[in-house]
Amino acid sequence: MTDLNPADLRLVSHTTSDGVTTRELVLGDVTAVLWAPEHAAPGTPLVLLGHGGGQHRHHLAMSGRARLLSDVGLRAVALDIDGHGPRPRTPDDEQDVAVLHAAMRAGEPIGAIVERYNAELARRTVPEWRALLAGLLAVPEIGSAPVGYWGLTLSTAIGVPLVAAEPLIRAAVFGLFWPSTLVEAARRITVPIEFDLQWDDEHIPREDGLALFDAFASTEKSLHVNAGKHMELPRFEAASAVRFFQRHLRG
Amino acid sequence: MTDLNPADLRLVSHTTSDGVTTRELVLGDVTAVLWAPEHAAPGTPLVLLGHGGGQHRHHLAMSGRARLLSDVGLRAVALDIDGHGPRPRTPDDEQDVAVLHAAMRAGEPIGAIVERYNAELARRTVPEWRALLAGLLAVPEIGSAPVGYWGLTLSTAIGVPLVAAEPLIRAAVFGLFWPSTLVEAARRITVPIEFDLQWDDEHIPREDGLALFDAFASTEKSLHVNAGKHMELPRFEAASAVRFFQRHLRG
Repeated sequence: MTDLNPADLRLVSHTTSDGVTTRELVLGDVTAVLWAPEHAAPGTPLVLLGHGGGQHRHHLAMSGRARLLSDVGLRAVALDIDGHGPRPRTPDDEQDVAVLHAAMRAGEPIGAIVERYNAELARRTVPEWRALLAGLLAVPEIGSAPVGYWGLTLSTAIGVPLVAAEPLIRAAVFGLFWPSTLVEAARRITVPIEFDLQWDDEHIPREDGLALFDAFASTEKSLHVNAGKHMELPRFEAASAVRFFQRHLRG
Repeated sequence: MTDLNPADLRLVSHTTSDGVTTRELVLGDVTAVLWAPEHAAPGTPLVLLGHGGGQHRHHLAMSGRARLLSDVGLRAVALDIDGHGPRPRTPDDEQDVAVLHAAMRAGEPIGAIVERYNAELARRTVPEWRALLAGLLAVPEIGSAPVGYWGLTLSTAIGVPLVAAEPLIRAAVFGLFWPSTLVEAARRITVPIEFDLQWDDEHIPREDGLALFDAFASTEKSLHVNAGKHMELPRFEAASAVRFFQRHLRG
């Protein structure tokens, strides 16, 4: 990874459909997409959307959240995490993914494998998010917008060290991750947090999810637990996250 | 307590203000109040509102929830729990309340005192709620409405055995109570549940609140944990409960 210069942020394309303007962005090796309500004013709040493992910036989970945010007047931006979407995996990434898939096929615990691989992706992605954010806020049309972060699973592994390091982020939605690689950074986070945990998660023991929630130093933090397995987070939690950002990023 | 006959339900007064019709009701010794959107149709969903210890049917927490429910087109009903509002305390009640207040003044644990007193109030109140509900559903203007239950603290102590016993109740919001007197009834509850827990509750240990949530047999259940003490439940949890009833009592 070479150092990214926020001033190198480039707009690649620009379309408007159904009241939402979509801009494709490039910053060095980083591909990203910005969604905004048509005619959004400078200073409109901006939510960073982090995708899950194996997904990419245009995954339905990202465009769906962007739609919900746009419907209430907020901007959203997603980037492709290294080794995802158009960004090639390194040989080490390929090896980590192969080990992960083998463990899943064998029904073995995946926690330690995911934690190690995602910590490596966080090391690469945190500076990319920070450079992309700096580049975006320097665009006059975006201005000094209040910023939030929304990312579960892999994007909690990336988001916790990101939010701990980036003072521009005022509120964050996290969830569905193990604590051991993240607790130290979580203890340095004081902004409002909403955290999702699945009560019957087949990968993450309850006490591990509760320990990560407990670690945040935030005086305003909410934990949403739902019955169901790791991949069964109810759809209404997306609407809840949108309300959370409305509360914390507006006025 | 004598047996209540639902057919004895009497309408005492009837006013309409700001789009909400308020009816004062009496059934034997039970005083109650029904709120409804003006011109609500038969079959409009009905939410039973249980008040907290030391409150009464017209407490701001009840009329505030009724307002939120009415705003989305739902009916709400609250009754005075025995020994509350206009209903006199027995000498035993007076004794229990005096012991509770003494423990609070001394900074001693109150769990066992509250659990015993509230279990006694539940024994009296469950049949009153059931008779009132039967009486209401027999009113043609109300009809066979879908029914929910919303009660925290004392009204979780009453609501858990009520919902376990009353098959007409399809969804319930509970929270802020200890498990030991309630776990057995909670294990018989299968309807959708939303459960509120305060992470820094000075009276109820975290593991106790989590144990009660865990006990519900419901396949759809959500736990909302917020940073803060026993009395610091955020106001947005009321809006969340209203959305929960909209999801489960409509269509």
